[in-house]
Amino acid sequence: MNKVYTGKTKDVYALDNGNYQLKFKDDCTGTDGVFDPGANTVGLQIEGIGRENLKVSVYFFEILKKAGVKTHYVSADIDNATMEVLPAKVFGKGLEVICRYRAVGSFIRRYGAYMESGTPLNAYVETTLKDDDLGDPLITPDGLDAIGVMTLDQYAQMKAMTQKISGIVKDTLAEKGLDLYDIKFEFGYYNGEVILIDEIASGNMRVYKDGEIVEPTDLTKLILG
Amino acid sequence: MNKVYTGKTKDVYALDNGNYQLKFKDDCTGTDGVFDPGANTVGLQIEGIGRENLKVSVYFFEILKKAGVKTHYVSADIDNATMEVLPAKVFGKGLEVICRYRAVGSFIRRYGAYMESGTPLNAYVETTLKDDDLGDPLITPDGLDAIGVMTLDQYAQMKAMTQKISGIVKDTLAEKGLDLYDIKFEFGYYNGEVILIDEIASGNMRVYKDGEIVEPTDLTKLILG
Repeated sequence: MNKVYTGKTKDVYALDNGNYQLKFKDDCTGTDGVFDPGANTVGLQIEGIGRENLKVSVYFFEILKKAGVKTHYVSADIDNATMEVLPAKVFGKGLEVICRYRAVGSFIRRYGAYMESGTPLNAYVETTLKDDDLGDPLITPDGLDAIGVMTLDQYAQMKAMTQKISGIVKDTLAEKGLDLYDIKFEFGYYNGEVILIDEIASGNMRVYKDGEIVEPTDLTKLILG
Repeated sequence: MNKVYTGKTKDVYALDNGNYQLKFKDDCTGTDGVFDPGANTVGLQIEGIGRENLKVSVYFFEILKKAGVKTHYVSADIDNATMEVLPAKVFGKGLEVICRYRAVGSFIRRYGAYMESGTPLNAYVETTLKDDDLGDPLITPDGLDAIGVMTLDQYAQMKAMTQKISGIVKDTLAEKGLDLYDIKFEFGYYNGEVILIDEIASGNMRVYKDGEIVEPTDLTKLILG
């Protein structure tokens, strides 16, 4: 297998059948040994976390498959911490798409003059460019079009999918007494369609329980039961 | 007259007829005595620049009036450096709307991984919140809607007006051998309509001549002939 990409928490290999294999690593983003899902650097290793993130991803990808949502997920080998996926093409050098149900985090850092932290948002969607040096700059739909990363029609598809998928994750968590504040996705292009790629792990979302934030490792336990 | 607002380069007074009067000051934005139209602090005074900025604004507002574009401009008293305007309501705590024909400045600082400086853009429009402490953060149309500053319909009106006005300014400058790279506007709400407010001065635009940037004070001379 040829390694085609080395990521911070996952590596990507090309399979003989034309698909890709994602290898979930035990490296975590964070700073100085403290786990921070929002960080852009690898800060620590947690034994077995790659497998746990894969399990959570498979849990949600299977739910999405039943709901008819197109994703890159094909199958998974939990023991080896690998997932087989369709070889989707990322948009540009990669995008992060965020769906927000509560105004927290970078939304409040930017727009806190207009809104109290924790104010409900109506499945607000925004996109950032993956660019570690620049701290993942925000970009508008017109901006994505202007720099040639995606058309306005592709953006509309991506936004609608983000809201649909986020709603499914939110409802799934609500059944466990958990409250989704925001969640981050990546999308790619495959066979003429926008599809969900990457993972859906605890570190990609902010979840609260009884008004308190749930740390990612605890969230994984709550999701997997 | 009651002063209703003290700005960095202009003060605003309430007139008895219900309109506002803008007083153009000789204070300039910049840092440590160096003029920088993009700066958020007053850095120096230039004798007579308030009057010069008013003259340029009147020059463009009169052209826009003939073109049927709605603005807050009523009349001007050049000697006193004052302009009478309609009492439009700003959106939120104020927005800046930028129209770009070339990728330079903050666009390249954010998206330079995708585009060479100077690449043509097709009248790309973006909006920032006026917030000195945060360096005027970018906000998407959905974001403006989410924080309750304007509806998506108002944004569509504002974007269309921005492209129309920018086109008029670009064509006017082109007749003088000048090339508009980008320009910054403010909009307000009056009588149920989105209208152009504030000023259209040399410090609000980046203009090139024969491939070299034209400094604002030189640009004023070129515009006023």
